[in-house]
Amino acid sequence: MIVAVLGAGQLGRMLALAGVPLGMKFRFLSTSPGACAGDVGEVVVGPRFDDEDSIKRLVKGEADIVTYEFENIPARAIEVAARYAPVLPGALALTLAQDRVDEKNFFRSIDIKTPDFHAIATRHDLDAAADAVGCPFVLKTRRFGYDGKGQRVIKSRDELDSAWEALGAHEGGLIAERFIRFDRELSVIGVRSSRGETAVYPITQNVHRDGILHTSFAPAPDLSADLVERANAIVTRAMHEMDYAGVLAIELFEVGGDLLVNEMAPRVHNSGHWTIDGAQTSQFENHIRAITGLPLGPTSMRPGIAHAGMLNLVGDHPPVSKLLTVPGARVHLYGKAPKPGRKVGHLNFGAASESAVRASMEAAGTMLPR
Amino acid sequence: MIVAVLGAGQLGRMLALAGVPLGMKFRFLSTSPGACAGDVGEVVVGPRFDDEDSIKRLVKGEADIVTYEFENIPARAIEVAARYAPVLPGALALTLAQDRVDEKNFFRSIDIKTPDFHAIATRHDLDAAADAVGCPFVLKTRRFGYDGKGQRVIKSRDELDSAWEALGAHEGGLIAERFIRFDRELSVIGVRSSRGETAVYPITQNVHRDGILHTSFAPAPDLSADLVERANAIVTRAMHEMDYAGVLAIELFEVGGDLLVNEMAPRVHNSGHWTIDGAQTSQFENHIRAITGLPLGPTSMRPGIAHAGMLNLVGDHPPVSKLLTVPGARVHLYGKAPKPGRKVGHLNFGAASESAVRASMEAAGTMLPR
Repeated sequence: MIVAVLGAGQLGRMLALAGVPLGMKFRFLSTSPGACAGDVGEVVVGPRFDDEDSIKRLVKGEADIVTYEFENIPARAIEVAARYAPVLPGALALTLAQDRVDEKNFFRSIDIKTPDFHAIATRHDLDAAADAVGCPFVLKTRRFGYDGKGQRVIKSRDELDSAWEALGAHEGGLIAERFIRFDRELSVIGVRSSRGETAVYPITQNVHRDGILHTSFAPAPDLSADLVERANAIVTRAMHEMDYAGVLAIELFEVGGDLLVNEMAPRVHNSGHWTIDGAQTSQFENHIRAITGLPLGPTSMRPGIAHAGMLNLVGDHPPVSKLLTVPGARVHLYGKAPKPGRKVGHLNFGAASESAVRASMEAAGTMLPR
Repeated sequence: MIVAVLGAGQLGRMLALAGVPLGMKFRFLSTSPGACAGDVGEVVVGPRFDDEDSIKRLVKGEADIVTYEFENIPARAIEVAARYAPVLPGALALTLAQDRVDEKNFFRSIDIKTPDFHAIATRHDLDAAADAVGCPFVLKTRRFGYDGKGQRVIKSRDELDSAWEALGAHEGGLIAERFIRFDRELSVIGVRSSRGETAVYPITQNVHRDGILHTSFAPAPDLSADLVERANAIVTRAMHEMDYAGVLAIELFEVGGDLLVNEMAPRVHNSGHWTIDGAQTSQFENHIRAITGLPLGPTSMRPGIAHAGMLNLVGDHPPVSKLLTVPGARVHLYGKAPKPGRKVGHLNFGAASESAVRASMEAAGTMLPR
């Protein structure tokens, strides 16, 4: 079986590392040469993801399934690819995830809470948004933002002019989202197979730094059974409503016992990287199983690993030799050249106790370049 | 870091799957196109493993280390490769492992027991071997045998003529080995890094079928502390004496409390495949760590997995979808076309109890084509 992937970054790379042992071969489409998934599969380089000739070269009449590893590809790419092979997850999830307004409207339409928001097309709308949502609020581009890019916090109306100057021209418009003083950020990662089977991973607690995911812990500490049930219901409902196949990640704000959906990613997600070493089946393997119609694997913690942690490696090359000496640490590098702000790898940790995981994460943290 | 591998079969493939997450890239030399390691790295196809031009194309002036994934490559290939990059494990282990007489003499020289044996170059030697070793004995080619190929059991002197006719012309000569009515077959897998650090995996018990490894269990049932210590001492001593770097597998016969060395493999070994899912660090990852000078990872069982098992998939394509439903089963396919007698993959099993492992292995066994 040949799996074609739109995109060729670390997520594609880890999909291949999980899928190759199931006997699958991987081919990736990249818009630049030297993509890191090329270490574990063939890379087709094309000018754009929706370029028909590139997609033809990707599928070559022999790929059994097409998937994507990031959501900022043109929805048209899926349309084009679907002429040559089935594409999963489908166009609906991608389209919704690409627009913060449509995404929030979708969740509200299925009775799932989101922060208050206001869509913005004109400078006048920006004032109306400030009225509706109240300051402080977060002004974001509706489309093509990631890792904190394309957004800023507006503390007072004095900042509206400069904010409009910076972001107003953004194609696709803007959104004002109420600034949520959350108790914590969680993510819930679900998977649904093309045969309709579903499973949900233990809830993850995330800490961001400079807009980039810094650490994850799973299961998130002090989860009530009720909260787990509500989070699981959110992702399961969303997958069902979209007739989804693959891994779906939903970022949540926990605030005063409520769960608000921040955003979703119709793909494997950084906050699920811990599953490679901490869960019985990784998110990558389950995504592959889900889109190829194989039975899903168990999503629960591995026996003997009650607590898992993940620490992103950002910017510089990490000191691998030293990191390998940290108890319970597993090194995952992406084969990418170092660059400020670039995710070059991550460390996974697992242990029987939360304190052991935290101790190892701290030990590793002190080894990293500042 | 770029790792060059002589050979491009499933062992090379699994080395890459373990080394890529450490940020390494893999390039393989194969003597035929379509080798299965090509799914996870670049394959250079050449006429012979010791062809200098092919090795140049393999190393390309940029590989940091060369290793090999099977021992039936010409020793000259290592000499040639060593002109372009360090080769580990070194030539000594390869040379010894390629000749059953030299191998046994090596073990005896370091006070490690082997079955009685007799080297055979002429038809006359064959009679002398029958005298020295006694019938029944196993007549084997000294060189280039694997998976039971190039050997037969001689029950009486009446069979000497026909045996000589079948095997006598074999380049490199023959060896007569006393037929051992062993209590069981064990293997001990050690690893030694280029910095001299050593570790040994839990002892594995193996069952062969038609000369091919069928199942492994780890740790082997009913091991006394004394036997573990002796097995560990055998592999540790051998690695030390050869100034070895990499994974070394030694097959042992347990007979009346004694351990006799059957043979060694200077590489990752089929009887260590369970380590991918059952040990804290797989044999593949530790081989890569060892030859690249990284610290070794723990070789003990994973927390929560007290017992591991491995079932080889031989011949036909297995029913993947069904096998994925067996509790605790992990599927590892090699991306090879089915062919009678060919290893196309393996299943790993892990659980807290031996009975759970055996139950899952039996369940999987009934699903396999006959």
